[in-house]
Amino acid sequence: MYYNDPKLQYPVRVDKPNPLFAKALQQAIGGIEGEIRVCMQYFFQAWGMRGPKKYRDMLLATATEELGHIEMLATAVALNLEDAPLSLQEEVSADPVGGAILNGMNMRHILSSGLAAMPVDASGVPFDMSHIYASGNGAADMLANVTAESTGRALAVRLYNMTDDPGMKDMLQFLIARDTMHQNQWMAAIEDMGGIAEALPIPNSHPQDEENREFSYAFLGFDKDGAQPVQGRWSSGTSFDGKGEFTSRPMQPLGEEPDLGLARPKSG
Amino acid sequence: MYYNDPKLQYPVRVDKPNPLFAKALQQAIGGIEGEIRVCMQYFFQAWGMRGPKKYRDMLLATATEELGHIEMLATAVALNLEDAPLSLQEEVSADPVGGAILNGMNMRHILSSGLAAMPVDASGVPFDMSHIYASGNGAADMLANVTAESTGRALAVRLYNMTDDPGMKDMLQFLIARDTMHQNQWMAAIEDMGGIAEALPIPNSHPQDEENREFSYAFLGFDKDGAQPVQGRWSSGTSFDGKGEFTSRPMQPLGEEPDLGLARPKSG
Amino acid sequence: MYYNDPKLQYPVRVDKPNPLFAKALQQAIGGIEGEIRVCMQYFFQAWGMRGPKKYRDMLLATATEELGHIEMLATAVALNLEDAPLSLQEEVSADPVGGAILNGMNMRHILSSGLAAMPVDASGVPFDMSHIYASGNGAADMLANVTAESTGRALAVRLYNMTDDPGMKDMLQFLIARDTMHQNQWMAAIEDMGGIAEALPIPNSHPQDEENREFSYAFLGFDKDGAQPVQGRWSSGTSFDGKGEFTSRPMQPLGEEPDLGLARPKSG
Amino acid sequence: MYYNDPKLQYPVRVDKPNPLFAKALQQAIGGIEGEIRVCMQYFFQAWGMRGPKKYRDMLLATATEELGHIEMLATAVALNLEDAPLSLQEEVSADPVGGAILNGMNMRHILSSGLAAMPVDASGVPFDMSHIYASGNGAADMLANVTAESTGRALAVRLYNMTDDPGMKDMLQFLIARDTMHQNQWMAAIEDMGGIAEALPIPNSHPQDEENREFSYAFLGFDKDGAQPVQGRWSSGTSFDGKGEFTSRPMQPLGEEPDLGLARPKSG
Amino acid sequence: MYYNDPKLQYPVRVDKPNPLFAKALQQAIGGIEGEIRVCMQYFFQAWGMRGPKKYRDMLLATATEELGHIEMLATAVALNLEDAPLSLQEEVSADPVGGAILNGMNMRHILSSGLAAMPVDASGVPFDMSHIYASGNGAADMLANVTAESTGRALAVRLYNMTDDPGMKDMLQFLIARDTMHQNQWMAAIEDMGGIAEALPIPNSHPQDEENREFSYAFLGFDKDGAQPVQGRWSSGTSFDGKGEFTSRPMQPLGEEPDLGLARPKSG
Amino acid sequence: MYYNDPKLQYPVRVDKPNPLFAKALQQAIGGIEGEIRVCMQYFFQAWGMRGPKKYRDMLLATATEELGHIEMLATAVALNLEDAPLSLQEEVSADPVGGAILNGMNMRHILSSGLAAMPVDASGVPFDMSHIYASGNGAADMLANVTAESTGRALAVRLYNMTDDPGMKDMLQFLIARDTMHQNQWMAAIEDMGGIAEALPIPNSHPQDEENREFSYAFLGFDKDGAQPVQGRWSSGTSFDGKGEFTSRPMQPLGEEPDLGLARPKSG
Ligand SMILES: [Ca+2]
Ligand SMILES: [Ca+2]
Ligand SMILES: [Ca+2]
Ligand SMILES: [Ca+2]
Ligand SMILES: [Ca+2]
Ligand SMILES: [Ca+2]
Repeated sequence: MYYNDPKLQYPVRVDKPNPLFAKALQQAIGGIEGEIRVCMQYFFQAWGMRGPKKYRDMLLATATEELGHIEMLATAVALNLEDAPLSLQEEVSADPVGGAILNGMNMRHILSSGLAAMPVDASGVPFDMSHIYASGNGAADMLANVTAESTGRALAVRLYNMTDDPGMKDMLQFLIARDTMHQNQWMAAIEDMGGIAEALPIPNSHPQDEENREFSYAFLGFDKDGAQPVQGRWSSGTSFDGKGEFTSRPMQPLGEEPDLGLARPKSG
Repeated sequence: MYYNDPKLQYPVRVDKPNPLFAKALQQAIGGIEGEIRVCMQYFFQAWGMRGPKKYRDMLLATATEELGHIEMLATAVALNLEDAPLSLQEEVSADPVGGAILNGMNMRHILSSGLAAMPVDASGVPFDMSHIYASGNGAADMLANVTAESTGRALAVRLYNMTDDPGMKDMLQFLIARDTMHQNQWMAAIEDMGGIAEALPIPNSHPQDEENREFSYAFLGFDKDGAQPVQGRWSSGTSFDGKGEFTSRPMQPLGEEPDLGLARPKSG
Repeated sequence: MYYNDPKLQYPVRVDKPNPLFAKALQQAIGGIEGEIRVCMQYFFQAWGMRGPKKYRDMLLATATEELGHIEMLATAVALNLEDAPLSLQEEVSADPVGGAILNGMNMRHILSSGLAAMPVDASGVPFDMSHIYASGNGAADMLANVTAESTGRALAVRLYNMTDDPGMKDMLQFLIARDTMHQNQWMAAIEDMGGIAEALPIPNSHPQDEENREFSYAFLGFDKDGAQPVQGRWSSGTSFDGKGEFTSRPMQPLGEEPDLGLARPKSG
Repeated sequence: MYYNDPKLQYPVRVDKPNPLFAKALQQAIGGIEGEIRVCMQYFFQAWGMRGPKKYRDMLLATATEELGHIEMLATAVALNLEDAPLSLQEEVSADPVGGAILNGMNMRHILSSGLAAMPVDASGVPFDMSHIYASGNGAADMLANVTAESTGRALAVRLYNMTDDPGMKDMLQFLIARDTMHQNQWMAAIEDMGGIAEALPIPNSHPQDEENREFSYAFLGFDKDGAQPVQGRWSSGTSFDGKGEFTSRPMQPLGEEPDLGLARPKSG
Repeated sequence: MYYNDPKLQYPVRVDKPNPLFAKALQQAIGGIEGEIRVCMQYFFQAWGMRGPKKYRDMLLATATEELGHIEMLATAVALNLEDAPLSLQEEVSADPVGGAILNGMNMRHILSSGLAAMPVDASGVPFDMSHIYASGNGAADMLANVTAESTGRALAVRLYNMTDDPGMKDMLQFLIARDTMHQNQWMAAIEDMGGIAEALPIPNSHPQDEENREFSYAFLGFDKDGAQPVQGRWSSGTSFDGKGEFTSRPMQPLGEEPDLGLARPKSG
Repeated sequence: MYYNDPKLQYPVRVDKPNPLFAKALQQAIGGIEGEIRVCMQYFFQAWGMRGPKKYRDMLLATATEELGHIEMLATAVALNLEDAPLSLQEEVSADPVGGAILNGMNMRHILSSGLAAMPVDASGVPFDMSHIYASGNGAADMLANVTAESTGRALAVRLYNMTDDPGMKDMLQFLIARDTMHQNQWMAAIEDMGGIAEALPIPNSHPQDEENREFSYAFLGFDKDGAQPVQGRWSSGTSFDGKGEFTSRPMQPLGEEPDLGLARPKSG
């Protein structure tokens, strides 16, 4: 069960409202790198957790925090829309800067939301919940979370570099710090579960002698000329998971050309 | 540029066609854990790669392999549909087992594709390219790839456990092995780039003194009663990235209740 | 900002796990009539509210409650999946009842989520955030909320009628009661704002002499034979909003046939 | 069955073509507040209507009208695109106003449709038919219709305020008037069915002694500090439906912390 | 502008209701091969038509017909749902045939629509308007229409083969006949515009000396071994459009390996 | 199985990077007229082909080519983003041309992809795999391919007309030529199968005496006034398929008004 406090987790201040930046901030709300995604991802992982209670607790704590981040960003979007133009009237479009604002902003901030945030990305595409990764495998889910926080922090840094509004920079410095923590937190959870090398190959509950081990640590090349594939850490030496030795070679087809036969009568 | 060979990368054989398993296999084609996703993800990462050429080469090699995996699975789906029923006629529905097949299979395998694979998941939902994660940040992208291969291998193992068809088990043993390699490969690439601890916080090009360091390594609790949050590897000791010390504490709101003022005239 | 308590708002108990009912319950999580929708809708309305603080407070309270309803239903789905079959093996499909379970359930509960809830509907279609109605107009939003709770309660009643599991019936009796309250609550909010008749036509801030009043209260017929349209409360008497008199008549086209001219050169 | 007349329901005239306004108008075609939505919603409600024939007739009449509204708006979009620029050539982008047009307009109006309307919203997102609300419950559907016309009229008013083109203003005055009527019409239909208070809680066919009445009229608070929730029309007095008394109180969890046990072997 | 007649274009009769066939019929309503698609495609093509009025008239006529086809199919779905089971009660699931119905039908026909049609396909995926092909190029659009009617007729034939209900077979014989006509009609329209060979390459308004003619009629092979590509009508002789001679050869890359340089500072 | 060569099929050169043109080019990658679509469409048709091997071979060859076209366009997008602005700083927005770039470009090229291509269209909408038309009917699929190449070439021509960058014009002249070939190629395949007239009505395996032949070649009018429908090649003379005679007439409803009865108890 959940509770609220009307106050924000961290102050949100906009010194100079900018509707174009409001559009950019939408990526951090409804984008695949955004806060709705991590919030709902952590909640669904928690609600489906079959394992030690501590991971469920941790997921719930951070999911709850992320809900407050959506709130902060939604507030930031609304504040950036304060002085947005509402019309295309000639006097405005004669002014290139005014015109620029109308051209660049998300028109649905005027037409659909009444100058408030929406659960869409910077292109106006609604967030779609298929991006909630919750597989029931703890290690896979923690990795999905590090990934989400990595693209999330990259996005927050790009937003930080895009603006020179002091209030927005202050808010983003907080959100970037939280992304730093959350990347570390999910990696720490993997350590807590035994470490990343131990976890691989995910799911590590599946006996590796039921996979085709000839191909388990082979880096395969598909070069047209049959050349040896590009070498690196991945082509020789002990595998990352410590359970095999990397090799490399060009691939040749092992199967035949498939033949599906003719279409059946009445199959249209 | 690309080339093809009509032969399959690995043999695909179905001993006893099963339309219900054809539906399940669709998840590995058009699901978010599936082969279209990794194929297109690696291609887009390669095509946008701004960095050492070796990573582009490696991405292209594996993307090209994944295209062949979609082909193998599409062949497997078509073979599993060989004897699928095409009608609801009374004699069939009087037979509960026959009825079960019609009930359980994806009807669009009859209605839309003519007994062939489609780029949809096990629920029939078409794959949507928003799942192609390619951020332009190398470490973030490699992590996204490990994540994709983790859910991919979990899926392949679940499919393996679901069937007892020897041909299908053989094919899945190969695909599971390749997922083992690919998980290792992307982690090895991160090592090649300097290692995961070094890479964090992603993007590590952003100076950490421009984030709000008070919150960079703090595990925050949001317990209703203000209790200390759940402890673990994430709440004390050196952070995973080695750049800070984990702390933990309950969170209090630092911001105020937002006040957006009244709606503007003519904003509707 | 938000807080959590690991306890559920109301007890969730499943006496006889049923994977088919797990699939049905997904509609109440990720369906357009479901709890993610109302939760996020009330949050976005609150976060964008430009008006008296009390409405923001009320929206936040109920949004927070709805988050707990998603949690209850996610728990119910996981519990209903406890004994779900994981394979298609012959011994199972020889048993028509066992086969029925495999045929009827959402296979992604096995393949994708590890026997847990997902943010999808009963057909497996992911929830899409375009369904979050938050227009910035208070009366429109309250009406959208009554509508959401109406389809939500209809869904909960249908689920209640579908199951005979005592635990599930008990949980649904609670959720149905909350939908009763929430329907009343949003209508009461409209009363608090002045009443529904007063609110109409939404937005009532737009001066009605800037609409084409000849058509503001006319019920128009489009019968092929030019017949008078069907009569009812909507065709005569004072309009619902009290600001006009209903009339009715068959419509005739008032415009001309459009002529867009020829395609421009180089327009392709 | 249906018929057409090549003439428009109401004249559509554009005095000064504006590609940016064409983009805005798309929201009224393919947006969730738009005409495709109401058209298809009323048709599907009519085609599935199980109840007195007069409601089916009314729904068919208005659905048929809405089809003509899509046509009017599609014509308006095409006319606004008459002089749209087709190239990015230097001389154009050196001109800030010309550049502004290219920047602000929907490029797919050039690239995909040949200067004509598309079934997309102002962000270019295609309309998705999940927004067709047709529940089979008459009162729920009528409420969904009032809601649709409310956001529809808010949108039309915002478009009206955005333009100063006399032809467009004239067309929008007509469409706004029709939205006025349709809001009144669906509320009148609810009156015709017995009135909104009587209809609540929807579906009113479900016996209220099969819901958990302790919670049917209670406004619950989720304040972190256990404070009494915000008071208003919704917290005391007779409920809107006249079937209970509003109360209010802070909520405490009544359920326990869920325990899903450990993951099953072979569940991946 | 449009008109309606409450009668159906052709009789719709269901002799033995079958909820599984109701699910199958949904493909013809909300599938990409279905009637919503052709209806809206022809309307949008008509509304954007810049060319001889007769094509607009023809498109409007057939679009209007297709609206009546959606209506027929929606009626057929509702009639097939007449006796659908509403509960999972034990006595039903003990009966494998009853269980089969519950397992195979679209549960949202019970949960969401009240036993009526929805704008979704046979998998329950909502129709998405991006499938409305209307390019502004007459020949391209007519070809898109033949294509739509081809998949539409294939679907109708598959539905016809699937059922043995005399009423449904009669309805489908009518719809199949209309698809026959519509395929012929759009091809006839292309003849009316000058013929398909003349129309190619679409758009034929673009001067062919502004394309790279070396590649305009060459069938290129991408065989791994550099083999000559498969021969047929497409590899030699006069091209279909009569404007060139087919040739064939294996392709070699003409470009270089791309080098995008390093990522820019501050690009994240 | 597939192979790669790091070189491009044809040179890609951008003389003057233009982020707005990068946005336009996205339509040719992730738009419904774009290269992902044809690539995946031809692959899925090939992988499901039940018929003479030569068609499978041809499909594989061209699918493989299209993969290289996505690569070329992705390279072109990245090159057009070379100098894109990364911030909204005041000095930039004071400059109307600089402002125009920020306003017009796809912000996700900065925020999400790190100045690289994404699988989205010019509006930023992700490509959705429901657009892969592969019906299992050869003639239907070939027609779908001509259609795809028609809208593809129309798009490429519009992009060609939009730019004056010599490198981009050169690349587009190549892609336009390939679309010319591919339109001819798929029509040639239909000839190879017996010709388009022979193929119609698709599927031609369905016996025409099982359709309602009264309506198989009748052009029906739906004019409100019962007028004769517009005449043309489609209303008289031998049908395009040579299997009937076109006629024309106004349509009258042949069915009755449907009556679905009352809602069932407990259906909500
Ligand atoms: Ca966050
Ligand atoms: Ca793979
Ligand atoms: Ca609820
Ligand atoms: Ca309207
Ligand atoms: Ca039709
Ligand atoms: Ca191409």
